Formats: sequence, structure tokens, C-alpha cells
Amino acid sequence: MKLIKLGASVTASNEKDAEALRVRLRRSGTLLVNVMSSAGSGKTTLLSRMIRDLPDLAIGVMEADIESDVDAKAIESLGATAIQVHTGGMCHMDAGMTTAAFDEIDGAHDLVFLENVGNLICPAEYDTGAGCNLMILSVPEGDDKPLKYPLMFRESDVLVITKTDAVDYFDFDFDRCVSRVRALNPAIAVFPVSAKTGDGMAALEAWLRDALQRWRS
Amino acid sequence: MKLIKLGASVTASNEKDAEALRVRLRRSGTLLVNVMSSAGSGKTTLLSRMIRDLPDLAIGVMEADIESDVDAKAIESLGATAIQVHTGGMCHMDAGMTTAAFDEIDGAHDLVFLENVGNLICPAEYDTGAGCNLMILSVPEGDDKPLKYPLMFRESDVLVITKTDAVDYFDFDFDRCVSRVRALNPAIAVFPVSAKTGDGMAALEAWLRDALQRWRS
Repeated sequence: MKLIKLGASVTASNEKDAEALRVRLRRSGTLLVNVMSSAGSGKTTLLSRMIRDLPDLAIGVMEADIESDVDAKAIESLGATAIQVHTGGMCHMDAGMTTAAFDEIDGAHDLVFLENVGNLICPAEYDTGAGCNLMILSVPEGDDKPLKYPLMFRESDVLVITKTDAVDYFDFDFDRCVSRVRALNPAIAVFPVSAKTGDGMAALEAWLRDALQRWRS
Repeated sequence: MKLIKLGASVTASNEKDAEALRVRLRRSGTLLVNVMSSAGSGKTTLLSRMIRDLPDLAIGVMEADIESDVDAKAIESLGATAIQVHTGGMCHMDAGMTTAAFDEIDGAHDLVFLENVGNLICPAEYDTGAGCNLMILSVPEGDDKPLKYPLMFRESDVLVITKTDAVDYFDFDFDRCVSRVRALNPAIAVFPVSAKTGDGMAALEAWLRDALQRWRS
């Protein structure tokens, strides 16, 4: 497993870096999915499940973390390509950092997931160059989060609501949550799932396959 | 309920601002507790419980949020003084912002809680001028968080592990978590609680009363 250490990019324009990376990804037919969420919402568990469920796709994962490499090790044990990115204290990935990380992933991939730093705020402010922004909200976090962190919900193409198996323990109203989300972002796709039991995973995975086809067409 | 809108402070030294606020708080005998955690870990639920459990103390709450006022409304309905602070997109509170917010709280208080922006990363980097840093980790977030967000655990005086009533649903090992935390910060006080059932709240509240006495002595 590779470990690379990055600081904030020094280029003048994050937008230009992001666009350049997207051009490169379109050429190689690789869909880069920027996975964002709060800490502890289940990003790694969800990715692990998708890697097991999609054995016909070549999947790479870039694990961005302030420190530690626990997530990259977990992913690599499933047979996917994983690299660990240390952000040097930075609370988000920008497009230059994402490009530098992507340069380090060996081989050709259908899907590359960027597991962004666990934070509902700062990552939403930076275009990473990904073709798709996927955000996770876990049931224990509560259905009021769209009211409190609206930018993240606005910037995402797809919302995955995780840990649905624990819903009996928490006061989480799916309809209320989804209507708050759609008020911010009418076009967002929403998938409630349990990566533990597998509930809802097939619909999310079908959506991802479609997104990959759209990316390549 | 007051709503104030703040941006980043323009003063040169956050450390000086923080020290000046602490001097002022010592004079008035008010313990300011900076409450930090990820989004959705149960900050507001914990504060609501403590307000109900400590009726003999005059408690004020400053709710910092990027947008929305759902938390301040919930706190005010319990009879405590609450003000809502909008950070204008900022992912943390600094000492100048905290001072500006504190200026707006009417009346004298024994305890003032600053509910910082929900984020395990950026708030840990800024001294707010508080007399005590209290962080929350909820059981659903997982026992590996000290490995991933070490600065927050290092900067905190007390760790409250919330949602312990949901432990059967999650793979959370208290001993493993606490030993990871103590490796970063041997002096930290740790209280596992359920704000829902009340389990563990008495010990945390006794610690807070002691902290108030220490602050005043």
C-alpha cells in the first residue's frame, strides 16, 4: 500500500485543475467518485461492500486522512487498489491534491473512489475534479443535517443514507430528511442502505453502473 | 432568541484574544465550555439533558452553526439562555468570534456552553478562550476515531462518549477506544453516557461542578 503526503496545492486556480483532471478521466473512461461525509458515517464500510458486490469492475480507492492508514489497509485486504493520502492536517482535498494522488494509483480502473476527509463542511467547498459527488449521511446523525450543512447537500449528485439497520434506535424520519434534501437539491438521487445487511445496495450499485455508462458516453 | 452573524476575526492574534476572554471569564466566575464533535454526535441532546439535570446552575448556550437555528430553539425551550451564532460558512469558531458571541449573552451565568460547528478537525485548531474543551464521540462513529482525528482528542480536557444505549447495534469497544485516547492524552477525563436514558450523566455532571469550582478557586 502506497502512502503519499500532500499539502494544499500551490496552483492559482482550483477550477482549472479540476477541469484538467476531468478531461483526463474522461479520456481514460474512469469515473472518479468523490465520497464525502462526516467522520464515522460509514464511508469505508460502504466502499468495502461495493468492492465485494462489483467484482467485474476494476476499482481503485484513494483514502484521504489527516493521519493513520486504517482505512486503506481495510480496502486493500479486499483486493482493490488502495492508496493512502495524508493531508498534513488539511480538512479537505482540492483538485491539485486529488490529481497528485491519482498519479500514484497504478493500473487502469473503471471506478476510482476518493474517500475525502471526514467533514461535512470544508470538502463541499472544493471541486476535486471528480465526475460524481457522493455524500453519506448516517441514520444516527439525524434527519436535520440538511438544515445545518446545506452546501454539502447542494453539491452532491447522490446521497446515500447509511446504517438504516439501526433506525429503530434513532429518531430519523426518512420522508422528512428527503424533503429537506430535495428543497436544497431537487435533482439529487437518494439511496437508503445498510452496508451491513446489504439492504438497498443493489439500487445504489445499479445507479453507479449507469453513472459510469453516462460518463463514458 | 438572538441571532448574530459572524465572520472570521480580523485581529492579529487568536492567542491574545483567547487569553483576554479567559481573564474576563475568570473575573465573572463563568466557566465557558467549548463543546466540539462531529456533526450528529448528539451535542444538542447532551446539552439539553444537562440543562434539565442542573437546575441550580445558571446556564447559557451559544449555538454556532453555518446556517439554521434549530438547536438554539431547542435549547431555549428548556428555559436556558440561548443565542444562535451564524458563522457565515466558517467551519470553526475562533476567540474573536467567541468573544463577540459572549458579548451578546444577557445576564450572569455559572456555565456557558459554546456548541462549536460540527466538525472533528478545524475547531481543534483554534483556542476559543474557553476554560474547558469538551469533546463528544458517539458510539455509531466508531472506536477508531482517535487514530484518525488525533488533534481533537489531544486538545480536549474531557471526552464524552454518547449514545451508549445503541452499543448493541455497533461494533464499538470502549476499552480499545479509551486506550487509544489515553495514548494521545493521558490526562483526559472520559465519561460514557446516554443522554436518552440518563446512564452515566451523574458522573459527568459531578465532574462539571468540580471543574466550575476549580475555575473559581
